[in-house]
Amino acid sequence: MCPTVIEELHSMTGGDQVKVQLPYKKRALRQYAPLLVATIGLPGRGKSLLAHRLSRYLNFIGETTKILDISEYRRKHVTKYSSHEMFRADNLPAYRIRQQSFREALEDSAKWLKEPGHSVAILDGPNVSRSQRQEIYDLISGELGFRVMFIECVCENPSILEQNFKDILKYSVDYRDMAAKDALTDLTYKMAHYKAQYESPTLGSELELPCPTVKLLEGGYGGLVAHGINGVKECKILSYISVPKPTQQVLYFSRHGESEFNVTGRIGGDAPLSPRGRLYAQALAKHVQSLNIPSLQVWTSTLKRTKATAAGIQAPQQHLPELDEIYSGDCESLTYEELAAHFPRELALRDCEKLRYRYPQGESYLDVMKRLQSVLFQMESESNILTISHQAVLRCVLGYFLDTEPEEVPYVHVPLHTIIKLTLHGHSYRMETVKMPIECVDTNRAKPTNCSISRTSDDALLTLPAHYDSVASLTSCP
Amino acid sequence: MCPTVIEELHSMTGGDQVKVQLPYKKRALRQYAPLLVATIGLPGRGKSLLAHRLSRYLNFIGETTKILDISEYRRKHVTKYSSHEMFRADNLPAYRIRQQSFREALEDSAKWLKEPGHSVAILDGPNVSRSQRQEIYDLISGELGFRVMFIECVCENPSILEQNFKDILKYSVDYRDMAAKDALTDLTYKMAHYKAQYESPTLGSELELPCPTVKLLEGGYGGLVAHGINGVKECKILSYISVPKPTQQVLYFSRHGESEFNVTGRIGGDAPLSPRGRLYAQALAKHVQSLNIPSLQVWTSTLKRTKATAAGIQAPQQHLPELDEIYSGDCESLTYEELAAHFPRELALRDCEKLRYRYPQGESYLDVMKRLQSVLFQMESESNILTISHQAVLRCVLGYFLDTEPEEVPYVHVPLHTIIKLTLHGHSYRMETVKMPIECVDTNRAKPTNCSISRTSDDALLTLPAHYDSVASLTSCP
Repeated sequence: MCPTVIEELHSMTGGDQVKVQLPYKKRALRQYAPLLVATIGLPGRGKSLLAHRLSRYLNFIGETTKILDISEYRRKHVTKYSSHEMFRADNLPAYRIRQQSFREALEDSAKWLKEPGHSVAILDGPNVSRSQRQEIYDLISGELGFRVMFIECVCENPSILEQNFKDILKYSVDYRDMAAKDALTDLTYKMAHYKAQYESPTLGSELELPCPTVKLLEGGYGGLVAHGINGVKECKILSYISVPKPTQQVLYFSRHGESEFNVTGRIGGDAPLSPRGRLYAQALAKHVQSLNIPSLQVWTSTLKRTKATAAGIQAPQQHLPELDEIYSGDCESLTYEELAAHFPRELALRDCEKLRYRYPQGESYLDVMKRLQSVLFQMESESNILTISHQAVLRCVLGYFLDTEPEEVPYVHVPLHTIIKLTLHGHSYRMETVKMPIECVDTNRAKPTNCSISRTSDDALLTLPAHYDSVASLTSCP
Repeated sequence: MCPTVIEELHSMTGGDQVKVQLPYKKRALRQYAPLLVATIGLPGRGKSLLAHRLSRYLNFIGETTKILDISEYRRKHVTKYSSHEMFRADNLPAYRIRQQSFREALEDSAKWLKEPGHSVAILDGPNVSRSQRQEIYDLISGELGFRVMFIECVCENPSILEQNFKDILKYSVDYRDMAAKDALTDLTYKMAHYKAQYESPTLGSELELPCPTVKLLEGGYGGLVAHGINGVKECKILSYISVPKPTQQVLYFSRHGESEFNVTGRIGGDAPLSPRGRLYAQALAKHVQSLNIPSLQVWTSTLKRTKATAAGIQAPQQHLPELDEIYSGDCESLTYEELAAHFPRELALRDCEKLRYRYPQGESYLDVMKRLQSVLFQMESESNILTISHQAVLRCVLGYFLDTEPEEVPYVHVPLHTIIKLTLHGHSYRMETVKMPIECVDTNRAKPTNCSISRTSDDALLTLPAHYDSVASLTSCP
């Protein structure tokens, strides 16, 4: 698992060449006691998708989280899945393997939580028996003094179940080599075996164990019942899972068309589109129309260049300030050449620690990630949104959905004049891109090798794409 | 109601003399559609305390919130409360007054929500009938396109009810002039009348209206049932109310004893206590012991001076980085005289906008408020905590509990060598202070009249307490 930004903040000791002193470095949120979240539920109740989404969210907000998937441990012992017989209560050899897998996953959860800086482990599995839950509680809470939270996924809605089953047959490793019809029969038996062993942790309002327990109904669409909630992490988890999220999801993204500032190599500002940027806006509208996306919504920033890019698209539009480009404060509207000449120290500090570096009177990537939280939260619970925003912002947004390591987020490649499509595929997102055939400058400046404050201007500008000066003459093209 | 920090951020246009350019100014969270939260429940179910706590929390996190208390509207029509007859379903003239009061409160909620920058209105009342809830929904959602959320408070736990009833008899305006016994009888009848009119909004998982609805059981101690949650604000509210908070609560606070930096007038740093500071630590421990506080916990920052101040107190101690003093970045360990000499612009900017001003590479009061959220969240759900922290941090903490206007938070008076006690009194907190008889410097610098960048050093230091140089010689006292 990737380290979270907060963990990074903790471990950060400054670059080799430059000592960066940033706020929050020593002020990161106290690591409250580590938390084990255990799922409970029959197959096909959306536990694993929930675990993956929760993990993505927690890592993004700085709670270093890892999923321990019990079925993956089982597959280490039984590399080739044969049939549902594996899950019969009276199949003693199989039961032993399942118990062993459960214990290994639990022990690895404990190991993970004991590591400094680690915050949450998600034990993803059915955990249908009381004795298993007691074992979880005894180890994590009793022995280690950490926290435990249970999330029970209950679902009897036939259409949700049908979709979940389809997804299992499509994405599960177990059914990769089985004919569809056989797989469905097998899954039905498997579920029946688990049903026979199922003991719900909540009876009325009586809690089985003294720890937060949430019963999530119909994938969240039927509401939830929560007991014994306490702790900051647990509250955040409750809040996150309380809003149902689609199991089928497609999201579209694009940067604004090339702007006049892009052409002259300036950062920030609120410049209009260049002539080529206006061509992209037309091409984008045409392309989007051809896709016939049902209930399409368009979200843009509040800046001219994203609004102009979206203008021709036939769909409801919202302009959100959270989607505005990273604010470069005193450095707004400068070129990299000017930065290198007038703010050489700032540029070196930024190259050294691009994720955490905050422009004087401006923002850092971490600041942008923070202000994006509420938008991502809304975005995750919808489908068919086209977000038209900016390079740094889309790096953060794509970084979120693609589980990018925080340190890599400021270097995610998001070229101009390109439509990006994310499709939920099992538990993760798949990315496709469509490059529109309209020329534009390249704005992607790779991390220079030399990040020293004493480097020359030439060294600082070594990775700057060769376009800025050379293409400035192209602004008059159609 | 006081404007929230976010609203302030929005409306902030810079001082008269200095144009302050700060990050987030134009980046504040999007004002998602305004939200009306309506309580539902019989008398004595903790609705009003919940409303006040929720309002305090929402205002602190930047959601400008106002409570509209239906009973206050009723008191405008019937200034002198006579008896429970007011609440009988078959008392038609009284019913008309109650309905009118409900409508006036509802209309004022709508008015409040329509104002730019306002975020949440809490309609505090029984709202026991379906027709009332339909009326709320039709106006707020149907006509205005805003959002509605219901919170039903259900409680049948005799000991919680008894305590709530005691609180009503003690704090309610209606019973101020009634003998205790008569008041209890009257309240019992009043409750019976409401019970006869009560229609719960949730039957199984069937929602009466298509909006988020939470049923809070036994003041939260019995868990909750939530349906139809969506929206960022609603999620935050769910998260906040999911953790039960005590109805009887006492919290203690103190700054660290006088430090060596206090004596020499330096800010920040991690200096040890001065000799007088050590005397305060002894006196504090003795005083706290004499109070015999049950299950006392001590929370300090991670800095030497708070740990040393707490060292003699017989109670479990936790050292939390969130309680560390505001981080003054490049200005750490300087005196105000040095600040005025070497950072005159920074000092002027800070005097101009003390709430939002962020030290170079350091923090602002707003940053501190943000990092305190999780600690406040924990603090609010406990009692008998003694928090030993620092001037700026305690200004924020006390500002929270005492509903201080954000702009005033950086000027809250928190003297050294003083124990502060907050007691929950009805819906608000009462403050008492005990000044220990141990001399110390004064560190409270009032806002100067002249905040211009071009002011003289003398003008900048005009409100600096006259102690720093003059008392420096006292460091050798016992």
